[in-house]
Amino acid sequence: MKNDNFDINALFLGPKSENGQFFKDALISCVDDHLFWRKDFHPEDEPIISYQEKKCDSFQNVQDRTLSVLDRLSALMRETSAPWHSPRYLGHMNSEVLMASILGYVTAVFYNANNCAYEGSPATTPMELEVGMDLCRLLGYDTSKSWGHITCDGTIANMEGLWYARNISSLPFAIQAVRPELVAGKTDWELANMTVDQILDLAQKVKDVWDDVRNNSVRGLGVQESKLGKWIVPQSKHYSWVKAADVLGIGLQNVVDVQVDNHFRMDIDVLEQTINDLVEKQIPILGVVAVIGTTEEGAIDYLDKVVALREKFQKEKGVSFYIHADAAYGGYARSIFLDEENRFMEYDELVNRLHAEGIIDNDIVWPPKDVYNAYKALEKADSITIDPHKMGYVPYAAGGIVIKDKRMVDSISFFAAYVFEAGTTSPMLLGSYIMEGSKAGASAASVWVAHQLIPLNITGYGKLIGASINGAHLFYNMIAKTKTIEVNGITVRLEALVNPDFNMVDFAFNPEGNTDLNYMNEINLKLWEQSSATGVPILKKDFVTSHTDLAYEDYKDAPENLALRLGVTSDEWNKVKSIRVLRACILSPYLGLPKVTEQYWDDFMESMKKKLSCILK
Amino acid sequence: MKNDNFDINALFLGPKSENGQFFKDALISCVDDHLFWRKDFHPEDEPIISYQEKKCDSFQNVQDRTLSVLDRLSALMRETSAPWHSPRYLGHMNSEVLMASILGYVTAVFYNANNCAYEGSPATTPMELEVGMDLCRLLGYDTSKSWGHITCDGTIANMEGLWYARNISSLPFAIQAVRPELVAGKTDWELANMTVDQILDLAQKVKDVWDDVRNNSVRGLGVQESKLGKWIVPQSKHYSWVKAADVLGIGLQNVVDVQVDNHFRMDIDVLEQTINDLVEKQIPILGVVAVIGTTEEGAIDYLDKVVALREKFQKEKGVSFYIHADAAYGGYARSIFLDEENRFMEYDELVNRLHAEGIIDNDIVWPPKDVYNAYKALEKADSITIDPHKMGYVPYAAGGIVIKDKRMVDSISFFAAYVFEAGTTSPMLLGSYIMEGSKAGASAASVWVAHQLIPLNITGYGKLIGASINGAHLFYNMIAKTKTIEVNGITVRLEALVNPDFNMVDFAFNPEGNTDLNYMNEINLKLWEQSSATGVPILKKDFVTSHTDLAYEDYKDAPENLALRLGVTSDEWNKVKSIRVLRACILSPYLGLPKVTEQYWDDFMESMKKKLSCILK
Repeated sequence: MKNDNFDINALFLGPKSENGQFFKDALISCVDDHLFWRKDFHPEDEPIISYQEKKCDSFQNVQDRTLSVLDRLSALMRETSAPWHSPRYLGHMNSEVLMASILGYVTAVFYNANNCAYEGSPATTPMELEVGMDLCRLLGYDTSKSWGHITCDGTIANMEGLWYARNISSLPFAIQAVRPELVAGKTDWELANMTVDQILDLAQKVKDVWDDVRNNSVRGLGVQESKLGKWIVPQSKHYSWVKAADVLGIGLQNVVDVQVDNHFRMDIDVLEQTINDLVEKQIPILGVVAVIGTTEEGAIDYLDKVVALREKFQKEKGVSFYIHADAAYGGYARSIFLDEENRFMEYDELVNRLHAEGIIDNDIVWPPKDVYNAYKALEKADSITIDPHKMGYVPYAAGGIVIKDKRMVDSISFFAAYVFEAGTTSPMLLGSYIMEGSKAGASAASVWVAHQLIPLNITGYGKLIGASINGAHLFYNMIAKTKTIEVNGITVRLEALVNPDFNMVDFAFNPEGNTDLNYMNEINLKLWEQSSATGVPILKKDFVTSHTDLAYEDYKDAPENLALRLGVTSDEWNKVKSIRVLRACILSPYLGLPKVTEQYWDDFMESMKKKLSCILK
Repeated sequence: MKNDNFDINALFLGPKSENGQFFKDALISCVDDHLFWRKDFHPEDEPIISYQEKKCDSFQNVQDRTLSVLDRLSALMRETSAPWHSPRYLGHMNSEVLMASILGYVTAVFYNANNCAYEGSPATTPMELEVGMDLCRLLGYDTSKSWGHITCDGTIANMEGLWYARNISSLPFAIQAVRPELVAGKTDWELANMTVDQILDLAQKVKDVWDDVRNNSVRGLGVQESKLGKWIVPQSKHYSWVKAADVLGIGLQNVVDVQVDNHFRMDIDVLEQTINDLVEKQIPILGVVAVIGTTEEGAIDYLDKVVALREKFQKEKGVSFYIHADAAYGGYARSIFLDEENRFMEYDELVNRLHAEGIIDNDIVWPPKDVYNAYKALEKADSITIDPHKMGYVPYAAGGIVIKDKRMVDSISFFAAYVFEAGTTSPMLLGSYIMEGSKAGASAASVWVAHQLIPLNITGYGKLIGASINGAHLFYNMIAKTKTIEVNGITVRLEALVNPDFNMVDFAFNPEGNTDLNYMNEINLKLWEQSSATGVPILKKDFVTSHTDLAYEDYKDAPENLALRLGVTSDEWNKVKSIRVLRACILSPYLGLPKVTEQYWDDFMESMKKKLSCILK
């Protein structure tokens, strides 16, 4: 399908239910299919519920109650739900979701499949496996060697990533215990620094005693700190990494934070120094996490440089480690970089196409080279978290994880046998080699429908996510252009945190002349309180946004620059060490057009002025 | 609402879509509500998608593609989905789900809330908290002290239970490190044997240094085997416990299996001996799991006796341990035991009511005293897994966990502050103190609707689940009555494994005179192959059932009795040590009536005869 034949507005219900009738018709068709299917399973069977029974009070009472409970539910949903469909929603990582995926989810709910085991989901287990392969392809993995699946969310996917890293890192020691001759002469330090490839190759040789090997790995013995190594994460880390380190028994003392730079990306020099320090102390490195789209700033870590560091350390010092990319948020945006042949485009070619096809406006420079390089390097990560329920625009709950080498699965699988061995049916028993057990087949169906409909390249998701990125940059440019607004005779400055790597814009207001950071934080907090999705009646809110607190504890001095631009001194920053910003995730597919953004921008500024005029009184 | 006013047939779509029109009407009403809500958020905003745009090829192409992808999905679902709505489905732990819960789920999907944080789910987070309280009440907990929430499934709930046990058990040592005076004079053995109550009381005293304490607990230090203790599970253990021990860093070597008795319930004498042996060796016990409804037999462990053992060990030897009840499957059935005032009925009173109200047939003896006592004791467990998507009859994915004492949350929470401290809003930030992060608000809505509609006592869920239990016992009685069938002149014996504790019946066939256990296993495997939900066309299957393998490795000699009753000798059992049984989870709400069961039973026997006549040729 040609790009010019793909109107993304036809994918969504629309802020004014513009596609409502289409949606309803499609829904009714899916319901009817289901209702007739029920009848058609052994048509000779008599109905169990008779017409007579349906006329009884005891029957009709239950129906009446059902309707009134549903009315109550619908009323509660309408009274308080966040208006994600509207361009007025500039808050959390939420937006419209695809009509097709809602309908796909709903259709599959009628059949209520459970993808834990194939017998419970003959239709949707194959969809989940197909979707897993789609994600592998999207992220640059060799689909003949890699594997992936849907998870309930990004947190569990991150935990599964750490589970892989932890169990794989313990295999060399386990093999030493069971078949010492295979690692003869290797020191503990060498065993702790084998590459993932080397470990998996070695594991192939102990297939005949696999259960024994695993019993001597962390799976059998439990965590043994002496053999564990450190798990390195950017200081901007999502709290799921704290949870993961706790749950996996690694302990927070074995998690090492690396400072972020002024772009809120993990500082590579600091990372190198951190690794050097550990190597000097002969402390192994369990793995490094790079975040592709931080949840608070949308920052894209320099994954390519992390990969390069690993290569350098391998070559120069015989030191290796696992790399996990937490692309829960940003993963799907790799579509932008892929052409119709699934080729990762050259930089200039990409930029030209983005402009030529009107995905990114001519005066917007995106992607920066750093972002481009990071996306390219995803194919080198050992595992990647990627959530369809974020930039895949499908309904909750659908997280995902992919692994580069499917041989890794045997390190966490319940099965003694090799999961992907030829001829085995076990790949269908998902629950036996992922963290979760029962899982909704409907989630897989919902993602499957999205992938069937929208190509995972520049013509499909690329165009859709591109619109959101363009929208974020339009919003950023409006902030830059606006600079100040007048509120009751007071000039109020407006500044964005950084030129966004992705589709999230953090920003803050400060009255000209105010140098009190606490006061400035108070103003922005109050602005948020009047613009949050909480507190009824939601229908009266002009705009909805979210907020976050950028504190020294998490970011060192990276936020200082914003404070300075807003007229706060370095001394003041050093005293308060925390800055409150408004946080707009511009996921809306409707804000990619300048005319829409400009129209809502004026309204937005009016709304902010009105709120500020009360706050500044 | 009086029981006689509650017709459970009005709760389901019906095997022949008998309530199809009602369902469709309700669905359309929920859709319309949503479509108009979108329009009503700032009615002054112009539509973004114009009538003109909708007429363009590029728009209509996307719509056409959407419809054809949905057609394909619907076709795949109908071609291969398991017919859970039909009384002909006697397989896995699946059945019809509540119309109201499907509609609740679907309605909530339109608003796509995320219960990770309140801002993403102002409507559905309160529903999740309410549902958590419902489950606490159902399981006998004091709702002013307990807490619970929805999980993505029972596996993650079990892991969360083990997470609690592991982190709580490490707190005394952490407190010793931070405030030694509080545990002065206590030996390591005494610290490892404090009761959960004692630990939580002690934790209250170190509130001011809570972060310090946690950094000195397993959360900060990682797993330290020397302080861990053993996690005791019944040998029938669900594989989620193997996964949990791996993920939580405990290691399988620290999991101790306890043999099951002839009812497939954890043998209490063996459990006592196991604990005694550990105590003698001064190895602490991290916790004991009792299963309320094993997945392969529906067996209910003697939870009351586990609790009594703990009391005895506490009193006599100063030994204590955590108790987790894995009631993922059986938990909701506690409704049967509760009267309209939420009182756990006396045994005789209960049996009388069950008969008087026609929930359990007069000639069926259920519950056995052991089952009654186990259900009563649930209120004594420290945490309980209970899955709404099993006996709550709601769609996937909705597992659940409840904890007896909400102070436990601080041991796993991300927050440094106390989660449930008065005045804090943090209880709304679910993602910060459960395993998962993003989670579908729709799951909570779906369970909430079910609980609003159906009382969690004998008049509501009690009647519904009672019907399934009655159905299972009718099925069991038919097996017992049938004893043998004639197939082409060969007499074939039919025997059930045990009189079911719950609503699952395992059974097997063997030709009279055959003493070859391998041959018998082969016959039953072939019967399953011809009756499984896999392999198209599903619409042609007469009946669908599942199967399982009861092997010595997991069950010791418990399955031998079935082999003997089918004409296989002890010697043969000792040689083969494994028996293949067909496994029928009778969850269907329609099989509680003798006339329905009897009618389908005749068809079922005919179908089995037809299959056997091919197999035995």
